[in-house]
Amino acid sequence: MSGTNSERELIAEGPAIILVEPQLGENIGMVARAMANFGLAELRLVSPRDGWPSEKARSAASKADHVIDGAQVFDTLEDALRDLNFVYATTARERYGFKPVRSPVTAATTLREKFVGGEKTGIMFGRERWGLTNEEVALADEIVTFPVNPAFASLNIAQAVLLMSYEWMKSGMEDMGRTPFQSLEQRPSTKEQVFGLFEHIEEALDARGYFHPPEKKPKMVDNLRAVLSRRSFTEQEISVFRGVIRSIDRFPRKRPEPLLAGNDSGGEGETSGNDSDT
Amino acid sequence: MSGTNSERELIAEGPAIILVEPQLGENIGMVARAMANFGLAELRLVSPRDGWPSEKARSAASKADHVIDGAQVFDTLEDALRDLNFVYATTARERYGFKPVRSPVTAATTLREKFVGGEKTGIMFGRERWGLTNEEVALADEIVTFPVNPAFASLNIAQAVLLMSYEWMKSGMEDMGRTPFQSLEQRPSTKEQVFGLFEHIEEALDARGYFHPPEKKPKMVDNLRAVLSRRSFTEQEISVFRGVIRSIDRFPRKRPEPLLAGNDSGGEGETSGNDSDT
Repeated sequence: MSGTNSERELIAEGPAIILVEPQLGENIGMVARAMANFGLAELRLVSPRDGWPSEKARSAASKADHVIDGAQVFDTLEDALRDLNFVYATTARERYGFKPVRSPVTAATTLREKFVGGEKTGIMFGRERWGLTNEEVALADEIVTFPVNPAFASLNIAQAVLLMSYEWMKSGMEDMGRTPFQSLEQRPSTKEQVFGLFEHIEEALDARGYFHPPEKKPKMVDNLRAVLSRRSFTEQEISVFRGVIRSIDRFPRKRPEPLLAGNDSGGEGETSGNDSDT
Repeated sequence: MSGTNSERELIAEGPAIILVEPQLGENIGMVARAMANFGLAELRLVSPRDGWPSEKARSAASKADHVIDGAQVFDTLEDALRDLNFVYATTARERYGFKPVRSPVTAATTLREKFVGGEKTGIMFGRERWGLTNEEVALADEIVTFPVNPAFASLNIAQAVLLMSYEWMKSGMEDMGRTPFQSLEQRPSTKEQVFGLFEHIEEALDARGYFHPPEKKPKMVDNLRAVLSRRSFTEQEISVFRGVIRSIDRFPRKRPEPLLAGNDSGGEGETSGNDSDT
């Protein structure tokens, strides 16, 4: 369908679109085009299989050059997320976990509210063939999934980006007068700060043989990260948590541990907590 | 994105998708795939340029064979519309006329109402290059157009069909915010469990002389509890936190503490974190 009017304002703002190990340049190009159609411009590529830049991507983008030219490449997903405050992971598969699962409409509304509130946001999309790993999903704040025909649920990556970009644009039109959903007196943490909390706690636990048996460690780490990330802690909360962990980790007790009511149940709870979604 | 489950119900009902003089078989195939993704099945082709059937269409449809096999070919648009009760024409260009112009959401709601009422409906899409003629649009009851970036408004035909099919599927869900699956239900914690977390962490810190100088302890405890309580943790989250604290508190390190990047800043942060809201 035609209708482009290059005289008119080029909208280029909003969440970053993060493609994890995209395989085909054509798909990256179609993603760029879909983004441009609905006013998104920031494309982040995590180790694209066929390298970057890609002429196939540029031609498939049918003139969405501002998106192609502005694309950034990262070696790891963590690097691609560090400066963001709030991130969605897209998935078609059911995940057993604790992250809230949102529809595209709800996700777009949340992204718009955070955008208006000055936060940096992103939406992660997985590989063409098999999407995102659980470890990758664990790095997101929430999950977004699409209402599809159960017997024919496979969306290609460009279609998935198109739908999220379309909902993003709609979310800006439905209520122009929308104000931030909350005036944050505390700055939301960046993903880098969240990853720092992960590493810090995991190291302190690992140093004590907490992750046992070894083959269960990845699952236990997933569960721990799910709990630590689902609340999108503020900078101040993360620094308080880290101060607590650091103090207990670094300094020895000066008196024996008491038998606090609920202490052991807490311990049990931790175990069952880790098992509950294996 | 994967997630197709062929065991599950194949939804195949709703408006007919009518493509007027489609040029590329690949596009017809991608249209069929988009329809199948969102439960549509009736495809009507008005004199496809490269003829029909088309192997290119079948392969681009990635297994939406029920749509490809059921496609009907017509010589004229009039023939393709004869048995329908209500038809939308899609266009990106502004048309001067008396036909109501609707958004995809409104159009999908209208189509759903008529479907439930037993009417036969359809959505017309124009040629890849230049869309529908005014004469063709004149055959429709209403116009539907997409909210796009004014400076980058060109949607390809498969994208346009995808968006309308997606809105059609959403219109059939009682709750637009509904998702196919949900995160695990978690019980909110009781105050007793929250207090247990307070005591547990405070004791572990106190045993290490964390609350120093003594006269500052009440304020430091206040700040700590403020952070620990403002998120209303679930039972499961509290037990995970307690498991973490308990493990670090109770068991000694088996290896020295590394200098984690951000670890000390975490420490600093903790101090300033506690001071920041004194």
